Amino acid sequence: MELLNRRMTDIQSRSIGLFDSGIGGLTVLREFERQIPNAHYIYLGDTARLPYGTKSSETIVRYATECYEFLTRFDIELLVVACNTVSSYALDVLRSRVRVPLIGTVDPVARQVVEQFPRGRIGILGTEATVRSGIYERTLKELDGGITVFSCACPLFVPLAEEGLTEGEIVEKVIAHYLTPLRAKRMDALILGCTHYPILGTAISSFLGKETTVFSSGDSMAKVAASQLGIEPINASISTHASSKYYVTDDPARFNRLAALFLGEAAVEAEKVALDPLHHGFYASTR
Amino acid sequence: MELLNRRMTDIQSRSIGLFDSGIGGLTVLREFERQIPNAHYIYLGDTARLPYGTKSSETIVRYATECYEFLTRFDIELLVVACNTVSSYALDVLRSRVRVPLIGTVDPVARQVVEQFPRGRIGILGTEATVRSGIYERTLKELDGGITVFSCACPLFVPLAEEGLTEGEIVEKVIAHYLTPLRAKRMDALILGCTHYPILGTAISSFLGKETTVFSSGDSMAKVAASQLGIEPINASISTHASSKYYVTDDPARFNRLAALFLGEAAVEAEKVALDPLHHGFYASTR
Repeated sequence: MELLNRRMTDIQSRSIGLFDSGIGGLTVLREFERQIPNAHYIYLGDTARLPYGTKSSETIVRYATECYEFLTRFDIELLVVACNTVSSYALDVLRSRVRVPLIGTVDPVARQVVEQFPRGRIGILGTEATVRSGIYERTLKELDGGITVFSCACPLFVPLAEEGLTEGEIVEKVIAHYLTPLRAKRMDALILGCTHYPILGTAISSFLGKETTVFSSGDSMAKVAASQLGIEPINASISTHASSKYYVTDDPARFNRLAALFLGEAAVEAEKVALDPLHHGFYASTR
Repeated sequence: MELLNRRMTDIQSRSIGLFDSGIGGLTVLREFERQIPNAHYIYLGDTARLPYGTKSSETIVRYATECYEFLTRFDIELLVVACNTVSSYALDVLRSRVRVPLIGTVDPVARQVVEQFPRGRIGILGTEATVRSGIYERTLKELDGGITVFSCACPLFVPLAEEGLTEGEIVEKVIAHYLTPLRAKRMDALILGCTHYPILGTAISSFLGKETTVFSSGDSMAKVAASQLGIEPINASISTHASSKYYVTDDPARFNRLAALFLGEAAVEAEKVALDPLHHGFYASTR
């Protein structure tokens, strides 16, 4: 405990940068705030250019690089790619470019799931683009050739979450609409393969019942981050995020309203910023 | 009737171009096919760059101009802007640039509504962007200062329509979620201010009951088009669209699947095209 306390003091001077195309990455931030509550967090939502899911790989790499460039201004020690699209299509290129450790959405949760359920029956929920990319399935099967995977795209989940509909009849009926066939598969584990979906996590868990363990990217990413930073993750019941800062690239009004919902906070005030386009080569904007 | 027949023959050689950022404009095309069944239609969905609603006005004007440029290849006699965003933010600039008559989504339906319900109680449904823009309300009040307007953003309607959920319990509950407060206003008319919403038109009408008449942009636009072309609109019970052609700027698979649903057709085959960027001034691509 003394060691933990010392390490928690160490972490107070550390900055962790997260980015996403929009609001979904806040569910990742929430897990970081719970498990590593004393770090400084800088969250960037590239809201002016969302969604990334429909863009080409080159464009996604360029946008992600610009997001990273912005976050380097804050002397971050760790880059958290809280965006499924970037994690699926641009992580290797990004990793070759950044000068800090980097954590994406896919690998940590895939490792945790196969470790807990070797040769298991694993469900994956995601947007149409994520399910079509096959990224979770491929990563899981590379880690454990014996698993069985069931994927399901749930296009209504993001708009439901963004409408603040997290419980009640509409949510229950939409969940049943998508997950009734999956429930019949008697899955050991289900991965919420979209950063919006944890908003509906409680409703999804109670629909599936106790035999299926529900995993989110954010929880596993925070555990990996704690390990990389050499600290023990804790499990604060309330997220404090006293020192989290939020930046967006479009009008903050909608982000602020949704952020309060996604983080369970009373008020969030994001600042609007412009990302420097990479006219002068890499790192141009931070020199 | 002879006159009408002669005019219906005339129209067979005429081409009408429609464009939208995506799939929604097909509900407009469906009305044109019903009311002016013998024209040739060319539909362009700029699916690679959707949604337009989050882009700046300059970008919207540029995209719309490129869509028009593409359609001029087909020697169109009429340009139908089947996109609410372009109709709201770029119609005047576009009108100053194009060489054919142009019809947008807002004006025709607004005129029809105030004509039928002077000083009426008018509801407007739309996306968050459209409701925030106030375009329908402003247009209606310029036409008739005595009307009362009730607006409501319905963000779940587009994803519902694109999921093919047009009836049943989920649709009914979502409609009730948004429209229960509006129904209490005892509206004379309701405008479906988003080209996706006619897909849910039957369910919306039956929720509101007979005292509220539901209007769609497409119906009014087709009537205005018929009048501009000097013909009487008819009301074919089935849309034939024997000579409609579809073009998209991204992979056609998703468009084809949804187009069948939006048009009530068995199969639609869109062709993927690239729009010429305007590097060399206006009309560059058609010279």
